[in-house]
Amino acid sequence: MTYELYYWPGIQGRGEFVRLVLEEAAADYIDVARQPRGEATLLAFLERQDLAYPPFAPPFLKDGNVIIGQTAAILLYLGDRHGLAPKDEATRLWVHQIQLTIADLVGEAHDTHHPLGADLYYEEQKPEALRRTKHFRKNRIHKYLDWFERILARNPGGDANLIGNTVSYADLSLFQVVEGLLYAFPKSTKTALAEFPRVAALRRTIAQRPRIRAYLDSDRRIKFNKQGIFRHYPELDC
Amino acid sequence: MTYELYYWPGIQGRGEFVRLVLEEAAADYIDVARQPRGEATLLAFLERQDLAYPPFAPPFLKDGNVIIGQTAAILLYLGDRHGLAPKDEATRLWVHQIQLTIADLVGEAHDTHHPLGADLYYEEQKPEALRRTKHFRKNRIHKYLDWFERILARNPGGDANLIGNTVSYADLSLFQVVEGLLYAFPKSTKTALAEFPRVAALRRTIAQRPRIRAYLDSDRRIKFNKQGIFRHYPELDC
Repeated sequence: MTYELYYWPGIQGRGEFVRLVLEEAAADYIDVARQPRGEATLLAFLERQDLAYPPFAPPFLKDGNVIIGQTAAILLYLGDRHGLAPKDEATRLWVHQIQLTIADLVGEAHDTHHPLGADLYYEEQKPEALRRTKHFRKNRIHKYLDWFERILARNPGGDANLIGNTVSYADLSLFQVVEGLLYAFPKSTKTALAEFPRVAALRRTIAQRPRIRAYLDSDRRIKFNKQGIFRHYPELDC
Repeated sequence: MTYELYYWPGIQGRGEFVRLVLEEAAADYIDVARQPRGEATLLAFLERQDLAYPPFAPPFLKDGNVIIGQTAAILLYLGDRHGLAPKDEATRLWVHQIQLTIADLVGEAHDTHHPLGADLYYEEQKPEALRRTKHFRKNRIHKYLDWFERILARNPGGDANLIGNTVSYADLSLFQVVEGLLYAFPKSTKTALAEFPRVAALRRTIAQRPRIRAYLDSDRRIKFNKQGIFRHYPELDC
């Protein structure tokens, strides 16, 4: 069965966490909104009246009759199917817990440039963005990376992965969130990463996995840009 | 086994979603931080060096050797154990998806009074809070409640519950989030609820469930207050 991923076509955004899993799994998938007239297809899907379980917002994944929204729930589903999550209940839930914490960080990263809400442009909330980002850069990035470093250090399977000694969807997501932070806040993130060598190493090793490398080098990988969650505004990084 | 819930003792906050499930399940649990010197116990737990899987932040639940952080992950775990989630994989994931969407709404409700970040007091970000809340009241509350109403209407098990024809942890959480919105933004929320009769009805029926009623009437239920996620500042509700 070919998966159908529904996500905004012009950005990495939350959809990217799903794309990375599908790519690592070498899964057969269509990135629906990136097909011809795909965004209209996505919007029409959101308006469907016939779905008992309609997703609230993209990203969502269609696998035959199963439709799953919410990034972390999609990864929970895919992780089980493609050997990217442990089978044991407690550790499976631990990976999910890490993913939900990454999701919190992603939400905070978004709010740096949109502290007053998504209804206003960045240019309409620039002074507020400066204030919010200062705290994010000085405290929040450090707090999250510190936790990732600690759980890597404590992983009974070794510090090359977040769980066990094989890659999980949470490793792929941690790679992605660090990439995003490096794009948006290069100075602050590089400084922070110097303190967290295991996180920095994980980012490098994930980028070198053959399927991820091929994906990153392909045109399937949308470039970071100023419409996504991670945005580089130099004034927010000094 | 007695569950141990670790959450800040003075607020409902995210811990309340867990408390409601434990109460509905009539589970044996200790609200650790509300015991004598409990907050120190919680803080000491967060500093433990011996945990392979340390939680990032409260709430977290300890069930023997299993420690689970992230509200939605805790409910996923408890739901399975106490008949508060379906067993079928697709619908179990659907309930989780609803929960994650409720979590997004909770995050947005928090940010109305702290748009610039949790490091500043509300009083230090009041003009910004006014701007952010306006969008939240006028658009976001409606968007979320509209989705909840739709999925209630479409539930193949009937519109009294979010899934099937019995209560799930997502029903309890929807009750809680509506209670929170009614406390924080009584005018806007009452107006909105008039459009969403199924959501309003669900809130009433959950409040009348015997164990929930007993809990709400007990001193185990912390009152809403101005330290929690849902805060009532009259200036934000007009």
